[in-house]
Amino acid sequence: MYKSSLLPNRSLKVAILGSSGAVGSELLKILQERNFPISELILLSSPRSAGKKIIWKNQELITQEVTEKSFLNVDLVFASAGGSVSKKWLSTIKNENAILIDNSSAFRLDKDVPLVVPEVNPNAALNHNGVIANPNCTTILLTLVLAPLNHISKIKRIIVSTYQSASGAGQLAMEELKSLSKMYLEGNPQKPQILPYSLAFNLFLHNSPMQANNYCEEEMKMINETRKILNNTELKLSATCVRVPVLRAHSESVNIEFSHSVDLSEAISKLKVAKGVDVIEDYKNNRFPMPEDVKEKDNIAVGRIRADLSNPNALELWLCGDQIRKGAALNAIQIAEILLRNNHE
Amino acid sequence: MYKSSLLPNRSLKVAILGSSGAVGSELLKILQERNFPISELILLSSPRSAGKKIIWKNQELITQEVTEKSFLNVDLVFASAGGSVSKKWLSTIKNENAILIDNSSAFRLDKDVPLVVPEVNPNAALNHNGVIANPNCTTILLTLVLAPLNHISKIKRIIVSTYQSASGAGQLAMEELKSLSKMYLEGNPQKPQILPYSLAFNLFLHNSPMQANNYCEEEMKMINETRKILNNTELKLSATCVRVPVLRAHSESVNIEFSHSVDLSEAISKLKVAKGVDVIEDYKNNRFPMPEDVKEKDNIAVGRIRADLSNPNALELWLCGDQIRKGAALNAIQIAEILLRNNHE
Repeated sequence: MYKSSLLPNRSLKVAILGSSGAVGSELLKILQERNFPISELILLSSPRSAGKKIIWKNQELITQEVTEKSFLNVDLVFASAGGSVSKKWLSTIKNENAILIDNSSAFRLDKDVPLVVPEVNPNAALNHNGVIANPNCTTILLTLVLAPLNHISKIKRIIVSTYQSASGAGQLAMEELKSLSKMYLEGNPQKPQILPYSLAFNLFLHNSPMQANNYCEEEMKMINETRKILNNTELKLSATCVRVPVLRAHSESVNIEFSHSVDLSEAISKLKVAKGVDVIEDYKNNRFPMPEDVKEKDNIAVGRIRADLSNPNALELWLCGDQIRKGAALNAIQIAEILLRNNHE
Repeated sequence: MYKSSLLPNRSLKVAILGSSGAVGSELLKILQERNFPISELILLSSPRSAGKKIIWKNQELITQEVTEKSFLNVDLVFASAGGSVSKKWLSTIKNENAILIDNSSAFRLDKDVPLVVPEVNPNAALNHNGVIANPNCTTILLTLVLAPLNHISKIKRIIVSTYQSASGAGQLAMEELKSLSKMYLEGNPQKPQILPYSLAFNLFLHNSPMQANNYCEEEMKMINETRKILNNTELKLSATCVRVPVLRAHSESVNIEFSHSVDLSEAISKLKVAKGVDVIEDYKNNRFPMPEDVKEKDNIAVGRIRADLSNPNALELWLCGDQIRKGAALNAIQIAEILLRNNHE
């Protein structure tokens, strides 16, 4: 067990590893918005991105190349620079007794690493050994609606199809979607350099590495991480992950089969009071969640909650959530907030 | 029964009702490509669109306002001007002993109207009473992959999520997607006039009218029409229909549960030889069907055919098909080709 599972009871020295990316920028924005107790903020990056000036809380900060010395006296590290970077600096971070909240997939399935969605399994965050993992974006959004429903009747099986925005592949993928769309509209050929194919007025199956079972890594993340967060190793789940020409919010079409028949109005009631979830359902006006609704919003939106016509024990629903915000940066900061000592006094 | 279920054995007088829309234009193109036996082609439209000049096979044709006299001596009518227009002119068309191939949903579920996907249930086309219905676009694409698999083991339940292009809402919706995307990229506000919300870098649930069961009309079409085409009233199906910012090809993420466990390689083999279907599966290079692959193509594309990890009797797959072409115009013309007398001699 770590010296203390909580953070010190004072303003903190915080480092951001991967500060110049889409998630890094959002972390900076949300730390300011939520007035997270910071005495010093260190922005770390690859040698290539070092030296970049960033204004934060009216101070000019300069991104620094990460070295052994970067973590001296640091209390808390937010990492979103990929799994290999997190792995490389883990022992240095632990030697400082700092806590790493890691946005990569490197440690998510490790037994001694909690995988946390604060609205779903906040207490898991307290049982860490220096590292807490932030789940995959699609998983965070999904578990926010599954958890409240799982209290009504145990969830047996989930079939999900995703509509994932360019932001999931980073800032450069977002820029590429815009530039290739412009070229398309001007009648010019589109040559993608970040994503494998042009996303302009096109879509494609998620291009993460394929597993032997013909599911891609992104789909397996949804399966394995959802099981861990809901603490249900028996849960059956199948996912089809698709990249669509949307900039920064993900959507998911979800079929949920329960152990028993579930009352629809009870399910809707549970979702209406669920933390982090807004229900957007207006059947008369055909108005349900859209990516544009949740852009830069903390809460995800859910709607079209309906009894599945093909199975009496199943419900169908549709959700949208900001991939960069709740799908990554906000969730990481909410995990850190669980560890603030004054939240436990 | 009609005078004859087949068309006369000569070049035909053909009328197109709704000739200036996206499907109408595609009908003209494909009739020429396939050298459909036409002696005279009549282009009919609403008063608003009448008088438009259209070049077809090097002839200048002029769209005419539809009247009682429009169908005089006509042998075959392709209608894609909406259900109310088809209903209005049905008795006039029948009085001429002409055959109506109707692209609207007006007659699809009528008992004496065959609903035909030529690769799936061609013989149904011969048993008509003057009207043959062309199924909904998403249904045509779906049944092309279901039919060959249904021969291996009876399909019990299908869960499908769609990724439907702007073309499904017509030519003006396609133009709107392009113009609003341009406005978005220029930083200008987007005011949709054709679709209820801007589709530019956004998506939304299909905006067809909602039913009492909280499924929309488009989703119910998939359910009811698939049952009729596969001749399986017991088939369980749940659909979530979504409009995405793609121009003219639809995609579908499909989970198929069978009565018995199905051998994956047998399923792939069946799809590889299925008429109207191309299998695009390259797991090494992560290359699967995309809307851009099927644009203006006759065949639909299917891939990611895999054993469902959540159910031993189920398969998952992904398909894309050109909505205007195989999803509408081509399918209608293929139905007409079944009725050509020399195809039966």
